[in-house]
Amino acid sequence: MTQFVTDKVARLTPYVAGLQPNEGGWIKLNTNENPFPPSLKVIEALRGVDLADLRLYPNSDSETLCAAIAENLGVRAENVFCGNGSDEVLALAFAAFFEGKSNILMPDISYGFYPVWSEMYSVGAVQVPLREDFTIRVSDYRDANGVVIANPNAPTGIALSLGEIEEIVRANPKGMVVVDEAYLDFGREQSAVALIPDYENLLVVRTFSKSHALAGLRVGYAVGQAQRIEELQRVKHAFNSYPLDRLAQRGAEAAIKDVDYWDETRQRIIAAREWTAQKLRELGYRVLPSQANFLFAEFPKAAEMYVHLRKHKILARYWNKPRICEFLRITIGTEQEMEAFIQCVKSY
Amino acid sequence: MTQFVTDKVARLTPYVAGLQPNEGGWIKLNTNENPFPPSLKVIEALRGVDLADLRLYPNSDSETLCAAIAENLGVRAENVFCGNGSDEVLALAFAAFFEGKSNILMPDISYGFYPVWSEMYSVGAVQVPLREDFTIRVSDYRDANGVVIANPNAPTGIALSLGEIEEIVRANPKGMVVVDEAYLDFGREQSAVALIPDYENLLVVRTFSKSHALAGLRVGYAVGQAQRIEELQRVKHAFNSYPLDRLAQRGAEAAIKDVDYWDETRQRIIAAREWTAQKLRELGYRVLPSQANFLFAEFPKAAEMYVHLRKHKILARYWNKPRICEFLRITIGTEQEMEAFIQCVKSY
Repeated sequence: MTQFVTDKVARLTPYVAGLQPNEGGWIKLNTNENPFPPSLKVIEALRGVDLADLRLYPNSDSETLCAAIAENLGVRAENVFCGNGSDEVLALAFAAFFEGKSNILMPDISYGFYPVWSEMYSVGAVQVPLREDFTIRVSDYRDANGVVIANPNAPTGIALSLGEIEEIVRANPKGMVVVDEAYLDFGREQSAVALIPDYENLLVVRTFSKSHALAGLRVGYAVGQAQRIEELQRVKHAFNSYPLDRLAQRGAEAAIKDVDYWDETRQRIIAAREWTAQKLRELGYRVLPSQANFLFAEFPKAAEMYVHLRKHKILARYWNKPRICEFLRITIGTEQEMEAFIQCVKSY
Repeated sequence: MTQFVTDKVARLTPYVAGLQPNEGGWIKLNTNENPFPPSLKVIEALRGVDLADLRLYPNSDSETLCAAIAENLGVRAENVFCGNGSDEVLALAFAAFFEGKSNILMPDISYGFYPVWSEMYSVGAVQVPLREDFTIRVSDYRDANGVVIANPNAPTGIALSLGEIEEIVRANPKGMVVVDEAYLDFGREQSAVALIPDYENLLVVRTFSKSHALAGLRVGYAVGQAQRIEELQRVKHAFNSYPLDRLAQRGAEAAIKDVDYWDETRQRIIAAREWTAQKLRELGYRVLPSQANFLFAEFPKAAEMYVHLRKHKILARYWNKPRICEFLRITIGTEQEMEAFIQCVKSY
C-alpha cells in the first residue's frame, strides 16, 4: 500500500464473494442463487421498456418500485427504501446508524460482510458467539448501540421466531436493530416487517436476489418507520443519488407483483431442501435445521469433500474458519441438481 | 433527527439533483442528459441478453466492460475500475484517498456533490475561489493532500488544457488528483488519461451518462495506475461487491464500442451548443466559453428567466448561491429544442 490510500482502507479486509466461474457446465451451489429463472412477467416488463429512455436519469428514489413493494408488504411507500442489492442497503444502514459507535452486536458466525462494513464505518463491532448448536442466544442481545442479525442466519440457515426478534428489538431501545431477511422467504417464520408499526428502532432488509431470482439485477430494500427511511435517504443522497437503473426498477416491480410465481418457485426450493437434508442425514451426515435456500452440513473432511464435488463440476461454499471448517454450505438447486449432488456425495 | 442516526448524518447536507418530472411534454435542459437515444448497438446488445441469466450474480468487477473501455482508451484492463455511475466511482475515490484528511482542494464553484462527499467522508475540504471570470487559477493547487477538479468544470463549462492538468498533478505529488471528465467528450481538450503512465497520483473519472446517452443505465469508470485501481477495488469490496447489473455491463460495453455513433452525436451537440451560444450573445447575454454539453449564461434576472422558461415547459437549472445566482445552466438539447429555447428567451 502507498501513501495515497487511507490507513483504514490499507488495513481493511475486503469481503470475498463466492466463485463465479465464467464458463458454463457447473452445478452452482455456492452463492445462494435461485435455480429457476425470473418470472415471465419480469422478462415481459424488461422487453417493454423503451430503451431510448435510457438517455434519461432514472427515478432517483425508485418511487414506483417502492410503492409496489409497500403494497406487497401492506405498508406505505414512505416505509420503503430501495438500493443496489441488499448489500448497498446494509452498507448505507451501517453508515446511517452505526458509524463510529461502539457496542454494535452481531453473531460471531453470520454474513461475512457485517465485519467488513464494521471496519469500513469504524464500528466497534462485538461478535457474540453462537451456542454450540449454532443457535443465537437471544438474551445475549441487550442494551447495545445497535444489533445486526440475519434471519435466517447465514451460513447456518437457522431462524429465530418473530417473538424472539421482538425480544431483541425490545431489549435494545437505544440502538437500531437491523434484521437481514435475505432468506426469510424460504422458511416458515413471519417477517419482522409486522413489528415496524410498533418499533422505531427496527429496520428490516430484504432482497430480490434470492426468492425473486434476480441476483443479476441488483435490487434490495429496507423497511422501517418513515423517519428511519428518511435518514437512509439522507445518507444515500450523500453517496450516490441514482443507484438503481431504469431496467432494474422495472424488473423488480414486475417480480414483486407476480406473487404466484414467487410462491411456486420458493415452495419447490423448500421441498428440494427437505429432500436433500433427508438424504444427507440418511448418509450419516449432520445437517443444521435450515429455513433458507441452502443447507449447512458437516463432513468429517469438509475441505476434501469440497474438492471432490468441484472435480465433478459441483461448486459448494467452504470457509477455512474456526467452528465452521468442517462444514459446507450447499445452495439448493433444482431437483435434478440436488440428485446429482447427493450422487456425488455418495461417490466420495 | 433522533437518537438513532449518527450526528454526522443528522448534520450533513445531502446533494439535491435537478428536477426529474414524472410527466412528459418538457424540454428538459436541466440535468445534462443527452438529447439523442443510446446507440442502436446498445439496444441490440440489451435485446440479446438471455434474461433467464438474471437469476445469477453479475461479474463483480465488470471485467468484460473494463476490457472494452481499456481498448477504447488504449490502456490495460487493470487500469480501469467500473462503478454505478461516476457518482459512485467518485464517492469510493473519496473513501479510498481522502477520508479523514485535511487540505483537500476543490474549486468553490464546481460539481455540488464534492462538498457533500467531503462531509460524508470527514474530509477537510478547502474550496479555492475561481477567478472573477470563473476560470481556475492553476497555481492555487499545490502541496495538497488531494485535489478534485471537474474538467471541463461544472456548471461553468470552462476547461483546462492537458498541460494545465499536468501542472496540477505535478504540483501535488503527495496527494491524489482526481479529474472528473464527465463532460470532456464535448470539448476540444485531450483526456488526462494520456498522463496516467507518468503519474501515480492521478485518477481520471468518466461516465456513460453524458456522451454515451446512458444516464438511465448508471455506469461510470475510473482510470489510473494499476495500484490505484486495486485500492479502489478494496473499498468497493468493503461496500458493495456487485454494483453493476448484468444489463448495465452489457449495454455500456456496446456503447463504448460504437465509436461512430458516439462521435456523430457529440458533434451534433457541440454544433448546437455553438449555435445557441451565438444566439444568446446576439441577444446581448453573457455566455461563458463552454467545452461541455451545457452553457452557463448570465441573465439580469436569472430566477425570473428560470420561471419564464418553466412556464413554457422548458426546464433549466438555477442555483440561488453567491456568484452564480444571476446565471442559468442550460443543457444542450436537439437543434429543435435549442431553437425553442432561444424563441422562449426572446419572448421574455
